[in-house]
Amino acid sequence: MKTEGRNAVLELLKTGKNIDKLLIEKGAQGSAMMIFAEARKKNVRVQFVDKRVLDKESVSGRHQGVIAFTTDYEYYDLDDIIAEKKSEKGGFIVLCDGIEDVHNLGSIIRVAECSGADGVVIPKSGSASVTEAVIRISAGAAEHLKVAKVANLNQAVETLQKNGYWVYALEAGGEDIFAQDFNGNVALVVGGEDSGVKRLTKEKCDKVLSMPLFGKVNSLNASVALGVAAYEVVRSRKG
Amino acid sequence: MKTEGRNAVLELLKTGKNIDKLLIEKGAQGSAMMIFAEARKKNVRVQFVDKRVLDKESVSGRHQGVIAFTTDYEYYDLDDIIAEKKSEKGGFIVLCDGIEDVHNLGSIIRVAECSGADGVVIPKSGSASVTEAVIRISAGAAEHLKVAKVANLNQAVETLQKNGYWVYALEAGGEDIFAQDFNGNVALVVGGEDSGVKRLTKEKCDKVLSMPLFGKVNSLNASVALGVAAYEVVRSRKG
Repeated sequence: MKTEGRNAVLELLKTGKNIDKLLIEKGAQGSAMMIFAEARKKNVRVQFVDKRVLDKESVSGRHQGVIAFTTDYEYYDLDDIIAEKKSEKGGFIVLCDGIEDVHNLGSIIRVAECSGADGVVIPKSGSASVTEAVIRISAGAAEHLKVAKVANLNQAVETLQKNGYWVYALEAGGEDIFAQDFNGNVALVVGGEDSGVKRLTKEKCDKVLSMPLFGKVNSLNASVALGVAAYEVVRSRKG
Repeated sequence: MKTEGRNAVLELLKTGKNIDKLLIEKGAQGSAMMIFAEARKKNVRVQFVDKRVLDKESVSGRHQGVIAFTTDYEYYDLDDIIAEKKSEKGGFIVLCDGIEDVHNLGSIIRVAECSGADGVVIPKSGSASVTEAVIRISAGAAEHLKVAKVANLNQAVETLQKNGYWVYALEAGGEDIFAQDFNGNVALVVGGEDSGVKRLTKEKCDKVLSMPLFGKVNSLNASVALGVAAYEVVRSRKG
């Protein structure tokens, strides 16, 4: 859904409703800058674009240099996901640390749903949101799985640990993923496209786990890496 | 690379060089139809498009209603891949049955390279080719891994079986993938986005293997499914 015009967007920002993305016209002045400041405070993703981009996106034709994109997607709280516990072998939660690409986020949610995870956690800033595109790419999985948006991913890791979860970062240079026992409560942290799992988050995690790489390419795509790890959780719990 | 104009494209078709895609103007007559017939014979992907699409793609401005897209990518023969044998535990080859999406093909090649496969086999028709986009999406893996383009995928399955390979189709409704022993020569067949592994190909395969699905979404993305299966080959060979 699109909200256009300065007043309407400012009101929208005050409601605290989830805003996927905010377009502001390059060089815009006055209240547009107030909107920008407010959006920054709320960790909303802002893109400065040419007027013709706004003209093209505008439905009403009266955007006044600002258009906000929202979806009606309803996020859950981390507590809802912790309470889910689909498997009697323990909880299973996926955390996304800076997945900015909608294709990757959609694929990750699809893998999580297929492999029986209780939910997916994404941070408010530096991450793609669950947009229409993400729902479509997830093959509808985002409608069947709980997704939580948290203010701070490191705090989410701590909360999970307090609730008896072992939190594993999926990253190069860690322990062999095939030598782990995933019975009990498990959380897997998947890193972003470029930076991987952030240093601070990695330090908070209980372990770093890796899969062997035999080629010259030094990493798997995020959703594929999660697929391998999630199904290793599945396999380990069966055995 | 683009080849434009009727004579140039006709000559190109005669060389037997790999053509990724051929654009022909809708409603074109005369030698354009000869080119179409030739392209069909050679299993080249043809798209009929409006003149403005050709105008936009044209570099020379003299396309005469036909533009062919080629890449310098060098394909190997299936025999080259069979001879590769990177692991002393046995050969490991990935076959793509109708992967039409460049993103999926690129991701599949990346997974295959990372997991130590000897190569990837794609059919000449009904499949994306290794274009610049595929190489980029594969994170360069297509430059390090042997890719073979075969006229007939079912014949490739037979050739592999004659060479002592166990050929497994990855599809719903098969045996548990986690109960297999992957020592010896292994080939995995990944199905296309919509149709999966084709019935005839599936019948030729030695076994159909599946991973458990716990959610409402009834399939994994092709490259993720391959990732799970390929790393199960890796894990099984270690144990």
